Amino acid sequence: MPVSAIDDAFVLSRIVGRVEEIAEAANGLFRVRIALAPETVGTDPGQLINMLFGNTSIHDDVALHDVELPDDLVKSFGGPRHGLHELRRRAGASVRALTCSALKPQGLPAAKLAELARQFADGGIDYIKDDHGLADQAYAPFATRVEAVAAALRGTAPNGAAYIPSLSGDLDAMRAQIAIATGAGIDAVMVAPMVMGLANFHRLVCDHPGVVFVAHPAMAGAARIAPALLIGTLFRMLGADAVVFPNHGGRFGYSPETCSDLADAARDGRNGLRPCVPVPAGGMTRDRVPEILDFYGADIMLLIGGSLLAARERLVEETSAFVADVKNYRYA
Amino acid sequence: MPVSAIDDAFVLSRIVGRVEEIAEAANGLFRVRIALAPETVGTDPGQLINMLFGNTSIHDDVALHDVELPDDLVKSFGGPRHGLHELRRRAGASVRALTCSALKPQGLPAAKLAELARQFADGGIDYIKDDHGLADQAYAPFATRVEAVAAALRGTAPNGAAYIPSLSGDLDAMRAQIAIATGAGIDAVMVAPMVMGLANFHRLVCDHPGVVFVAHPAMAGAARIAPALLIGTLFRMLGADAVVFPNHGGRFGYSPETCSDLADAARDGRNGLRPCVPVPAGGMTRDRVPEILDFYGADIMLLIGGSLLAARERLVEETSAFVADVKNYRYA
Repeated sequence: MPVSAIDDAFVLSRIVGRVEEIAEAANGLFRVRIALAPETVGTDPGQLINMLFGNTSIHDDVALHDVELPDDLVKSFGGPRHGLHELRRRAGASVRALTCSALKPQGLPAAKLAELARQFADGGIDYIKDDHGLADQAYAPFATRVEAVAAALRGTAPNGAAYIPSLSGDLDAMRAQIAIATGAGIDAVMVAPMVMGLANFHRLVCDHPGVVFVAHPAMAGAARIAPALLIGTLFRMLGADAVVFPNHGGRFGYSPETCSDLADAARDGRNGLRPCVPVPAGGMTRDRVPEILDFYGADIMLLIGGSLLAARERLVEETSAFVADVKNYRYA
Repeated sequence: MPVSAIDDAFVLSRIVGRVEEIAEAANGLFRVRIALAPETVGTDPGQLINMLFGNTSIHDDVALHDVELPDDLVKSFGGPRHGLHELRRRAGASVRALTCSALKPQGLPAAKLAELARQFADGGIDYIKDDHGLADQAYAPFATRVEAVAAALRGTAPNGAAYIPSLSGDLDAMRAQIAIATGAGIDAVMVAPMVMGLANFHRLVCDHPGVVFVAHPAMAGAARIAPALLIGTLFRMLGADAVVFPNHGGRFGYSPETCSDLADAARDGRNGLRPCVPVPAGGMTRDRVPEILDFYGADIMLLIGGSLLAARERLVEETSAFVADVKNYRYA
């Protein structure tokens, strides 16, 4: 609103946003630094994103590049409840990169998905996530799928493959899905924070401290909010134990610098939060394992989905080879 | 995933998306038509947006232009429970455009916001919405604000000004806020579907059939999903009785064509849904009233916020003049 319409001294001195700097970063592109009062946010993650980029998202020539958040706000959100060390502990891996694959395509019945999970497990994979397209569809409803996959993985080796089902629907539906998962002995789930809303994501995290949350970037966009900020900093701050994102050189257009910044934001020492596991993905293949491990180091989870599944009847062998690639890699 | 990795006949014949057309629309810009199976969505609005644009949102050179939705899917979501006719009925207006203003700035205490509401009401406005920046902040908590505004509006004329408070937080917090509002005699609320998540928006609509829902475009973006589709078609389908959007020529960059398409999508006869009220806003002023009414016709709600508030001690008179502008306008 026009500042001329404001006559309240507290609002003028404390609440109105302040432009602190305008600097030309490139030809016609300006870096603008704006100060906002933390009182405008309170402790609501939805209101945080509303203040940071709500109406500004409607300007097609403005991107949200980064935010410096007050330490006490970050700590009040709490960050990962588990993070890298717990995901390694569950996999029986002390220092190496973790491995992950995905159940897909959607349209398969639960029994077929469970059979794929069993083969991934036989190949020695650490984690098996649902493709984010798997929701509560009639051809493999959440409850049926989770029961089938959990049954298929029972009796595998100690520290064997763990299943990460994808939640969908409204907050109540997701709560019911978590209850189904934990009832089947599964204690990790995947959610898409930008589909469900950041406040609802944080609500689930707070209400289920024993559950590992993997965040998926669906609807997180490419360029309007910097991926390092949204997926690295904000998803982590709100409790993501791991963040899936499109690695450079795959099906998506993130640059190596974007990926590096995102991984740094997810696992650096900021605010004393636990490190969140970067999960580079999106069209990865076995031949890229050495390059990816050199690029990110060992503090990641490496996700290869479709290109393992393309091995079809050789899925166990291909998975084993992927797992061996990661376990035996000698870092440069 | 690679189609070569799929060996299931049902998935190949029924679930895999099909590229139906690729046509160059402009130099280097292509219009691509893709068919998706409704089974992939089920009845979950979150999964709908996930299928339409979840991962695709991460491609910075792809926009979601439009979607043809199956009639039975649209009808199952249900559209506006009230819409244009009910919003007119509540205001005692038979055919004219409706008027609206906004309580702001945030940072004011509840008593000052209530005083502004009283002045808007004295000026004869139909609807008074919260600015979408008003959440549950310490300086005017939701419950305190709603009670104060409701009290200020009690005893005004029949069909007098109605208050539309803005909901925030997670789904549970919003439910509690609706209970507070209805307890104070208020039966209309505003939400930001892209902040709270489409599935949670639809959940609230279904659970509160007596409440009018006004949808705000915060986080709805400018260009990645066509505004007519997201704000006009999808928000309406999920139950928005009115949709706020940035009018052309104000603070935002929507073109006249975008605004016209959006208004058409909100109120046309598609699928037998009730018409949803377009609410053009974003830096509007009294001098633009004739132009706006000629552009959209009378089936809108005209929102002028900051430029009325800039009248300060003349707020009642300025509001009366705005209301008279709208009531007395003779359409070209």
